[in-house]
Amino acid sequence: MTESPNPDGARARELDSSAVFHSWSTQGGRDAIAIAGGLGSTVWDHDGRRYLDFASQLVNVNIGHQHPAVVEAITRQAATLATVAPNHANLVRGEAAQRILDLAGPAFNRVFFTNGGADAVENAIRMARLVTGRDTVLSAYRSYHGNTGAAIVATGDWRRIPNRFARGHVHFFGPYLYRSEFWAGSPEEESQRALRHLERVIEAEGPSTIAAILIEAIPGSSGVLVPPPGYLRGVRELASRHGILLVIDEVMSGFGRAGEWFAHRADFGDGRESVVPDLVTFAKGSNSGYVPAGGVIVSEAVTAAFTDTVFPGGLTYSGHPLAMAAIVATIDAMKAEGIVEHAATIGAEHLGPGLRALAEAHPVIGEVRGMGVFWAVEFVDDPDARTPVSAAFMAALGAALRERGFLPLIVENRIHVAPPCVVTPAEVARGLALLDEAVTAVEQR
Amino acid sequence: MTESPNPDGARARELDSSAVFHSWSTQGGRDAIAIAGGLGSTVWDHDGRRYLDFASQLVNVNIGHQHPAVVEAITRQAATLATVAPNHANLVRGEAAQRILDLAGPAFNRVFFTNGGADAVENAIRMARLVTGRDTVLSAYRSYHGNTGAAIVATGDWRRIPNRFARGHVHFFGPYLYRSEFWAGSPEEESQRALRHLERVIEAEGPSTIAAILIEAIPGSSGVLVPPPGYLRGVRELASRHGILLVIDEVMSGFGRAGEWFAHRADFGDGRESVVPDLVTFAKGSNSGYVPAGGVIVSEAVTAAFTDTVFPGGLTYSGHPLAMAAIVATIDAMKAEGIVEHAATIGAEHLGPGLRALAEAHPVIGEVRGMGVFWAVEFVDDPDARTPVSAAFMAALGAALRERGFLPLIVENRIHVAPPCVVTPAEVARGLALLDEAVTAVEQR
Repeated sequence: MTESPNPDGARARELDSSAVFHSWSTQGGRDAIAIAGGLGSTVWDHDGRRYLDFASQLVNVNIGHQHPAVVEAITRQAATLATVAPNHANLVRGEAAQRILDLAGPAFNRVFFTNGGADAVENAIRMARLVTGRDTVLSAYRSYHGNTGAAIVATGDWRRIPNRFARGHVHFFGPYLYRSEFWAGSPEEESQRALRHLERVIEAEGPSTIAAILIEAIPGSSGVLVPPPGYLRGVRELASRHGILLVIDEVMSGFGRAGEWFAHRADFGDGRESVVPDLVTFAKGSNSGYVPAGGVIVSEAVTAAFTDTVFPGGLTYSGHPLAMAAIVATIDAMKAEGIVEHAATIGAEHLGPGLRALAEAHPVIGEVRGMGVFWAVEFVDDPDARTPVSAAFMAALGAALRERGFLPLIVENRIHVAPPCVVTPAEVARGLALLDEAVTAVEQR
Repeated sequence: MTESPNPDGARARELDSSAVFHSWSTQGGRDAIAIAGGLGSTVWDHDGRRYLDFASQLVNVNIGHQHPAVVEAITRQAATLATVAPNHANLVRGEAAQRILDLAGPAFNRVFFTNGGADAVENAIRMARLVTGRDTVLSAYRSYHGNTGAAIVATGDWRRIPNRFARGHVHFFGPYLYRSEFWAGSPEEESQRALRHLERVIEAEGPSTIAAILIEAIPGSSGVLVPPPGYLRGVRELASRHGILLVIDEVMSGFGRAGEWFAHRADFGDGRESVVPDLVTFAKGSNSGYVPAGGVIVSEAVTAAFTDTVFPGGLTYSGHPLAMAAIVATIDAMKAEGIVEHAATIGAEHLGPGLRALAEAHPVIGEVRGMGVFWAVEFVDDPDARTPVSAAFMAALGAALRERGFLPLIVENRIHVAPPCVVTPAEVARGLALLDEAVTAVEQR
C-alpha cells in the first residue's frame, strides 16, 4: 500500500491502526485501504483511487453505494425522528414490516426487527426453542450464522471453535458436490445422500429433542453452495415430519443477492416457491447496510404462540426508524428499478458465463458456482485432486486485484464474486478482465 | 387510548398490531402511542399530543431528541458514505474511537464497535475468556446485560430464565440496601457484606476458573442501584487479586446518564476515578441511539493479547459510518454544551431534591435513589415491610402519567425517572408536578 498524500487518508489509516479494535483479525500490522466515498459499484479512497467493489463490502451493498432514494429517506427520517423505542408505535417501522411481509408471502404475519444478522438468528433460535419446547438446534458445518453467543455456536465453520459456550447445538454436513462428504457423483445423488445423512443425524439425536433446523438458503461464507435439486424441499419435509421448525437464514442470500427476493424461493430443480420455512432471518441486503438492521420474518403459527405469552427477547433498537426508513426506500427502489430481476440477468447472461470462460482459460480455477450476483471461484493446485491453493497464492491474488482497482472478498481458497445487484454489464466485463489479468499475473510467478 | 383522527397515526397503530413482532411483550392486545416526532425532552404523536419523555425512550436519548448537530452529522455522512465494511479503514470510525479513548483514560487503547449493548457484552465476555483461558463469568442477579446468547445468560433478572442455553455463567447478589440480601443496616455495612459474599462466591467457584466479573456501574433495569461506598473499588481489588478481568457495563449508565461520562469513575465514597476496569461496554448514550451502536473499550493488556492472534469475533456493521458520525457529533456537542455537567446539576439540585420531597409527601413511595438524570422511585404498600405495590397499582399509575403527557419507564414496582440529560429545571418541575398529581390520583382510588 502506498502512503496517502491526502491528510484525511493518512489519518484514517493511522487511527485504524492505533484506535480501532478489528473484527476477525489480528490487531497488529494493519495496512487497510481508507474508503472515502462510493457510488453504485465503485468506491474510492481519499486520493481518488477508484475500486470496483466486487465484494459489496461484506456482501451487503446490494443496491449499490449511495443510492439517492435511500440516502434521501435516511436524511428525511433523521430530520423527523432519529430514534424511538420499540414499545411505542412508529409509522415507518410498520411500513417496513408490511413491505417485508408482502415479499415473504402469505405464510408469514409479523416481522421482528433486530440490529443485524446475528441477533436475527439469536431470536429465531429463541422462538423455535420456546415454540417447540425442545433444546437442540441443527445447523451445517459449512455455515456462518453470526458472532453472538448462540449464533456463533450455531455457526459451523472455524469461527465456532473458540466460542463454544452455548449448549444444544449439533452440526451436520450439507451438500457440496465439488467436495462431496457423501461420495456422490451427480447433483441428484449429492442431494439424496445429504438428505439421508441429515435424516440419520435427526434419528441419532432423537427427533423429539430437536427444535429447529437452521440453514442458509445458499451457504454464503462457506463458498456460495447453491443447493442441488430437491435438497431444500427434502429438508422441509424432514422438518415437518418430526415437528421441527425450519429456519432459513437469508442474511446474505436474500434481497436480490441471488437474483431473487429470497433465495429459498428459487427453483432448485423442484419448482419455484416449493419451500415455505417457519422463520426467515434477514439483514444485509434488506437496506444494503445503510443503517444497521436485521430481523426475523415470523410465520402465523409461531406468532400465535406469543399472542398471550410474553416473548422473552428484545432490543433497544428493534425497528429503529432510520433503519426502517432505509428498508422502505430500498425495497421501493429495488422494485421500481427492477434491481432483483437485473441481478438475475447479470448472473445468467454476464457473470456466470464470464466466470465459466475464465475457469476454462485457467486450470487453477477448479470450480465456479453461483446465481445472480452471488458467485464463488475456487482455486486449486491440481484440478483432479482439487487441492486448495496456498494462502500465499490467495494473498498474492488479493494484492494483484487491489492494485488493479478490484476489491475482492477472499475466503480460504476462494474469491467470492459479489458485486452490487446494480452492477452493469460493462462493469462486469471490466471486473472479469481484471480478474483474468490478476490470475494470469499470479500464475506466472 | 383514544382513536387517532390523523390517518398516519391510525395506520402506525394498526401496523404496530398487525405487522410488527414486539420485544419483551405479548403480541396480542397492543395499544401503543404512535410517536411522530420529538425535540429535546418532548415527543409528540400524529395528533399533536405532546409528552414529556421522562424515560429517554429506553434510557438512551441522553442528548435529547433531534439535537441538530447529531442530525446534521448523520445527514452529512449519509451523503458521503452510508456504509463501509470493518476491514477497510474509515476516517469517521477512527475519529469516534479516538474520542471515546480520550474520555476513557490512559488505561485503554482500542475501541471495538458493535451494533448495540448486547453484542458489546458478548464481545467483552469473548475477550475475557480468551485472554484468561478461563470459562466462568460472574454477574449479578440484579442485572441486565442484553438479549443475545451469552449476554442474556449473563443477565441476572427474570429475562435469563427462559434463555439459559449458554454455559459458564454464575450469579451473585450485589448491594441494594433497601432490600439487603445481607441483613445490613448501613451503606458501609452493605458494601462490606456484599464484597464478602462476592469473595465467598469466587472462592466457592474456584478463582482459577473465573474469566470475568461483569457488573453494571449502576445496575439500571434492576432499579438504579447506586453502589455503596467502596463497593466498586472492592470488586476491582477482588478481581485483581485472582487474575480475573473486571468488565464494567456502562451501556445504560454511561455518557452523561449519571452526570458522568462513565458512572464507574464517580466518587462513591472512595475517591473519583478509583476504579479502572479491564473492559468497558457502552451503547445507548454514546450517540443517544440516533443510529444503532455499541462497543467495548479495550485496555492495553487485552489488546496486546490479540496483536498477533486473531480475535475470533466480528460484525458486518462494526464501526458503521452513520453510527460513528453520530458518536463524534454527540460527544462534541455534549462537551461543547456542558451536557454531562448539566445532568449532574439537574440531579443534585432539581431532580434529586424534588423526588425526595415527593417521597416525603407520599407514604406509598418507599425510596428514591439515583444520580444525574438516572433515578428510581420505588412504590410500596407498607413503608415498614417494604412490600411492593401491585401490578394493578403500577398499571394505573402508568395510565395516569400517560394521560397527563408524561412518558414513564415502569419496571416492576418502580418508575425509573430518566429524562434526557438536557432536561431543563422547568421541565423537571413540570414532570415532578405531573408525577405528584398521578400518584395522588391513584392513591385516592
